[in-house]
Amino acid sequence: MFQFVINQASLKGIIDAMKAIVDEDIKLHVDENGFRIEAVDPSNVGMVFLQAKSSAFDAWKASPMELALNIRSLENYTDIKDVPVSVSLDEETHKLKISQGKTKYSMSLIDPEVIKQGPRIPKLDMPCVVVMAGTDLQEAVRSANKVSDHVILEQNEDKFVIFAKGDIDSAKVEFLLSELTGVKQGISRALFSLDYLTDMSKVIAKNGSVTIESGVDYPARLSFCIGNDISVQYLLAPRIEQDE
Amino acid sequence: MFQFVINQASLKGIIDAMKAIVDEDIKLHVDENGFRIEAVDPSNVGMVFLQAKSSAFDAWKASPMELALNIRSLENYTDIKDVPVSVSLDEETHKLKISQGKTKYSMSLIDPEVIKQGPRIPKLDMPCVVVMAGTDLQEAVRSANKVSDHVILEQNEDKFVIFAKGDIDSAKVEFLLSELTGVKQGISRALFSLDYLTDMSKVIAKNGSVTIESGVDYPARLSFCIGNDISVQYLLAPRIEQDE
Amino acid sequence: MFQFVINQASLKGIIDAMKAIVDEDIKLHVDENGFRIEAVDPSNVGMVFLQAKSSAFDAWKASPMELALNIRSLENYTDIKDVPVSVSLDEETHKLKISQGKTKYSMSLIDPEVIKQGPRIPKLDMPCVVVMAGTDLQEAVRSANKVSDHVILEQNEDKFVIFAKGDIDSAKVEFLLSELTGVKQGISRALFSLDYLTDMSKVIAKNGSVTIESGVDYPARLSFCIGNDISVQYLLAPRIEQDE
Repeated sequence: MFQFVINQASLKGIIDAMKAIVDEDIKLHVDENGFRIEAVDPSNVGMVFLQAKSSAFDAWKASPMELALNIRSLENYTDIKDVPVSVSLDEETHKLKISQGKTKYSMSLIDPEVIKQGPRIPKLDMPCVVVMAGTDLQEAVRSANKVSDHVILEQNEDKFVIFAKGDIDSAKVEFLLSELTGVKQGISRALFSLDYLTDMSKVIAKNGSVTIESGVDYPARLSFCIGNDISVQYLLAPRIEQDE
Repeated sequence: MFQFVINQASLKGIIDAMKAIVDEDIKLHVDENGFRIEAVDPSNVGMVFLQAKSSAFDAWKASPMELALNIRSLENYTDIKDVPVSVSLDEETHKLKISQGKTKYSMSLIDPEVIKQGPRIPKLDMPCVVVMAGTDLQEAVRSANKVSDHVILEQNEDKFVIFAKGDIDSAKVEFLLSELTGVKQGISRALFSLDYLTDMSKVIAKNGSVTIESGVDYPARLSFCIGNDISVQYLLAPRIEQDE
Repeated sequence: MFQFVINQASLKGIIDAMKAIVDEDIKLHVDENGFRIEAVDPSNVGMVFLQAKSSAFDAWKASPMELALNIRSLENYTDIKDVPVSVSLDEETHKLKISQGKTKYSMSLIDPEVIKQGPRIPKLDMPCVVVMAGTDLQEAVRSANKVSDHVILEQNEDKFVIFAKGDIDSAKVEFLLSELTGVKQGISRALFSLDYLTDMSKVIAKNGSVTIESGVDYPARLSFCIGNDISVQYLLAPRIEQDE
């Protein structure tokens, strides 16, 4: 038994959040309380942990199971704006029935065994935390992209700093801790690939605020919510900082 | 003598309707009552019959004649929105004078003899008829395109169904006859290329409702009006349905 | 000493005006009263003279100097709409500090000696003048582009005419002098490349009206203002008119 109804914007939010890390096949861990997805990108640099409670759905009924599907097909079959999406598993054919208004799709599933095992959520003790608007992170990442393909995230006593140094020019965006919320004071500094951070920040910018946790040469954790009952965590591995 | 004035949106409607079938040279059959165009696409799969009454024009004066022209040039020279288009034949130079506001073009005509003879409108006795919103047809065709490159149009006692079966997934949109207008009950089922239907449905969607006539392994006829006095018919040949 | 604050739209106007002629490195002649730029395109066909008074800036402080920079980088680093741009020269590092809101860039300058010497503003006694809306010029140039890659600008006793003759079709836009302002009557006719005029007319269309000065086989001068205190002149060399 697996069936749910969800508003199209929330489903699109889930799909977009996943696509920043994996854009082909994903595996859902489903039970009566909702579902979770854990995925790592092919280079093992970025991870995503997404959890959707049953309360995030207009209707949710599911027995515990694993389901694997192509996320691009799901996106493609649910793209009519503002029309609720109904999904149910046809147990006989083992296909997903997707309907939006008058339009119905029958979508093939994938054998969950062939999907790469999702990562464990690492226990990380993060020394620094700030909360900022997703649009502020996106704007800072956009600036960094203009001069380099990597960026330093740094927190000190006063500021959270996003800094990129290119061969010719450099870009810096500083946030005073006194202007931010949810601050846990500490010292952090690590270098990250802008590829990943760019994709992540675009997703976050649509979803209000983001919690950024960081440390010295440590992964960064970016957490945000889609609506009330869908939580997303990105974990981004640091790059080794070369002498500059 | 050949001269007319028409509002830009109507002319664009005529051009768009033609372009779904022929996008190069077309031949107009002109007389005092208006004009008609009959054209078939290079593969002989889709045909268009377009008729514009003189009342569709702000002004119309024409002696009986055939005129051939490049439809892309005509489109290109009449693209200023909301500005009426005046066209007249310069009998001496045998060029078309086109003006929109301050802008004037002199456009070369083509020898009508070199244009492929338009098809005769076949007499077809269609067992099934439905009328639906052009946007509904367009939306259904868009869904079909996501899974296949061909589509089945089918009418039965209760429903008009647009169904596409791809190698992996399938898409279906069902319309209850009780929700549609202009219904002539009957049984139909035929397979069509989505290429043609996609182009046609885009044109139709801009023009309100469409009458769809169909039969068993029979051509489909799609008819609609642009404004009050321009009627368009598309005729689409069926494909042979392979064992699926 | 070199520092200024300017609203983003004005700076973008300056950059766009320059880019119609030079899209790489430019040289600014700076002093306490503002700056000027003189540049010629690589083919020596189009020139631009731009002058910005200190009053065009929210703040302006400068000692006399020459500064060279990459205009694409400047554009790239100042693209946040509606946020004022602050620029200052760091005399020690000889880099330009650019900031918009929280975002700060450090931008490398170029040795002014390596930039091609700007042209002298030629003294030209123009027999004909008209003033028209930039959008009218742009629309006429757009029409001309549909039939040819060059265009004739012509003024006679009654009209200012923009005329393009292609291999197949021709386009003409006529403006009655009685409908235009700022008219200086005279006779002019010269042929110009549409490449340059297209880029120029796009910039002008955003900036209200344009003064067009012309003569017989003579360069055309297009002048317009960005706001109150930034004046731009384009000078466009005529092409030799072939027998048509």
